Amino acid sequence: MSDTPAFHATPIFPRGFRCASRNVGLKPTARDLTLFVSQVDAAAAAVFTRNHFPGAPVVLGRETIKAGTGGTLRAVIANSKVSNVATGATGVENARRMARAAAQEIGASADKVLVSSTGVIGVRLPIEKIEAGVIGMTADLQDDPMVGAEGIMTTDSHPKALSASVGNATITWVAKGSGMIEPNMATMLSYIFTDAAFDGPTLDRLLRAAVKPSFNMLSVDTDTSTSDTCAILANGLAGSVDEAEFLAVLTAGCTRMTEILARDGEGAEHLLRVSVRGALDDGEAYVVAKSVLNSPLVKTMVHGADPNVGRLLMAVGKCFSCTIRPATTDAWINGYQVVANGERLDFDDAIVRETLSREVVDLEIALGVGDGVARAFGCDLTKGYVEENAAYYSS
Amino acid sequence: MSDTPAFHATPIFPRGFRCASRNVGLKPTARDLTLFVSQVDAAAAAVFTRNHFPGAPVVLGRETIKAGTGGTLRAVIANSKVSNVATGATGVENARRMARAAAQEIGASADKVLVSSTGVIGVRLPIEKIEAGVIGMTADLQDDPMVGAEGIMTTDSHPKALSASVGNATITWVAKGSGMIEPNMATMLSYIFTDAAFDGPTLDRLLRAAVKPSFNMLSVDTDTSTSDTCAILANGLAGSVDEAEFLAVLTAGCTRMTEILARDGEGAEHLLRVSVRGALDDGEAYVVAKSVLNSPLVKTMVHGADPNVGRLLMAVGKCFSCTIRPATTDAWINGYQVVANGERLDFDDAIVRETLSREVVDLEIALGVGDGVARAFGCDLTKGYVEENAAYYSS
Repeated sequence: MSDTPAFHATPIFPRGFRCASRNVGLKPTARDLTLFVSQVDAAAAAVFTRNHFPGAPVVLGRETIKAGTGGTLRAVIANSKVSNVATGATGVENARRMARAAAQEIGASADKVLVSSTGVIGVRLPIEKIEAGVIGMTADLQDDPMVGAEGIMTTDSHPKALSASVGNATITWVAKGSGMIEPNMATMLSYIFTDAAFDGPTLDRLLRAAVKPSFNMLSVDTDTSTSDTCAILANGLAGSVDEAEFLAVLTAGCTRMTEILARDGEGAEHLLRVSVRGALDDGEAYVVAKSVLNSPLVKTMVHGADPNVGRLLMAVGKCFSCTIRPATTDAWINGYQVVANGERLDFDDAIVRETLSREVVDLEIALGVGDGVARAFGCDLTKGYVEENAAYYSS
Repeated sequence: MSDTPAFHATPIFPRGFRCASRNVGLKPTARDLTLFVSQVDAAAAAVFTRNHFPGAPVVLGRETIKAGTGGTLRAVIANSKVSNVATGATGVENARRMARAAAQEIGASADKVLVSSTGVIGVRLPIEKIEAGVIGMTADLQDDPMVGAEGIMTTDSHPKALSASVGNATITWVAKGSGMIEPNMATMLSYIFTDAAFDGPTLDRLLRAAVKPSFNMLSVDTDTSTSDTCAILANGLAGSVDEAEFLAVLTAGCTRMTEILARDGEGAEHLLRVSVRGALDDGEAYVVAKSVLNSPLVKTMVHGADPNVGRLLMAVGKCFSCTIRPATTDAWINGYQVVANGERLDFDDAIVRETLSREVVDLEIALGVGDGVARAFGCDLTKGYVEENAAYYSS
């Protein structure tokens, strides 16, 4: 993965943010409930899944944080193991009870708490365990974002947090991912904290701009979660920050977190990045990049480090709605050209095999049609993915 | 799989059709070249892949058989192991040489020979082996369609042929499938032979009508082959046949062959059928059926017989462009209802586990929005798929 020096060696929180996590009995022993708290009101914005069956926390979250204008938050409470999706009116009421329980614990109103749940779909949320478990969590609040990241893990192999400085302020990202991931106008669970000062509408605009080339270009398995949520909280304790500089760091952090989530996709052994240039426009570049990234035959080729590069052309060629000219189509794997003018080059199999076996595999496609560009992030398809998902509910 | 009594217990050819297959050195020992011959000129129609990188045989095939009007054929020659795709002008010239070699062997003109190649993309066709190997094949011509089916197998686990009667005529289907299969306006390699009498334009219309609800609703892995070809040859030796009756049997055979191809998808252990009803229109039903059929999380749920039925709602819900109303969405697995009004029912896990473990798994989705219907055919996602495709080129 690319090194971005702006990130702190060990993630820290911005001024005024802390978190805690606990086991409250949803999982056998692992932490399953996380509370993030800002000591003062924070302006907030969020984007949510476009899935037609949003989870109850997403339904409630859209009330709490309005698209376009944002909202005000004091806390985020999130549990793992059960996603509270496809649970009807009772599910929404349980999400409200979860907000109220957290609000009572921190001494705020319930409409300043964002709720998330992640895990199995279609199982009733054991709300009583959460209500009992949250009591006393303020006493556990501490300064390490990784502790919060741990409480929201499902099939993630490690907790995920990042932080970076921008002017006098700090931005901190905490996320979880792994499977059922092809966010669309939103993302998996991802929380961003900053002490920079921005109002809700500005935060909303900056968040959408940062999410577009990062989380929205991620796909582990083409399946769009019913719980996708990406929220940003800005408590203003560091004062104002240059907006362009903030957006650049915000986007860089979202992109880096996207790479971390892709690399830790269920069963993944490689981070796969697909860059497309020369498309008719950015929209067509997006379609081609996602087609190559999501092709099971491209993903298994990377997994097996098998130089079966004709599959790249197959995956470009199945974008029926796009302008594709075989005579101007070129392709590279980690900078090594394997296709020129729509034909497979007579390359050295051993070189391609070696480069495909690296942890990070960059596929580049040049279409020679226009100026459209896109970059998408994903992973290989492995037996581990099949194994994890053939018995997820039961395990 | 459903029993359709119209099919013969052992597939036979219509009057005037025979075939032969041989090993000509493309594979180590298995048959790798097949020749189908009609003793008289046959009216013909064909549909081909919509992939932007069609194989050289598809480029040539579109010259031989015109969309809309069809053409005239005496023979089909097809090889396995190498697909002759992404091979440039030399590839097209090699396809022409293959047609000429077959034409010379049977004593016909080259424009009456349809050529197909299937196998690895981006490898030069060893045309000399085919030209030498086809010599003397007319002496091998015999009456068992399975012998022809054997010569076109790639990762298929068994050769595939069917036949059925319609009036005084016979229809015979010979196909291969397995991976890189989500046909679009065409199909994998599939040849249909009949002694019924139809002209080219009529055959073209009947073929397109039969392919639409069958081969075009098949997806093994969302990847659209660069070689997809479905051709029908009608030599007229049985005289005329009722057109409606012919179309019904033609469609039934294409549907049955679609099920056989899905069940033998790479690594597949289950045939998966997804029926959608109550969609806004047939177009939206198609999108939802394909979304459920292609969802890796639904496919692994079936593979693991894991009653994680919330994934059905996730896969329906990610059809962003469709009209989906959670309150009217119901779902069944092999007739057992698991979702009502967008909520997971409190069902018996053991029953769902048992029904998911059957060889054929029928998923039904009722959207309660309109009258649109669709049915799609696929298979589960297994470690076998990953294993076969991580080293296909090298094996």
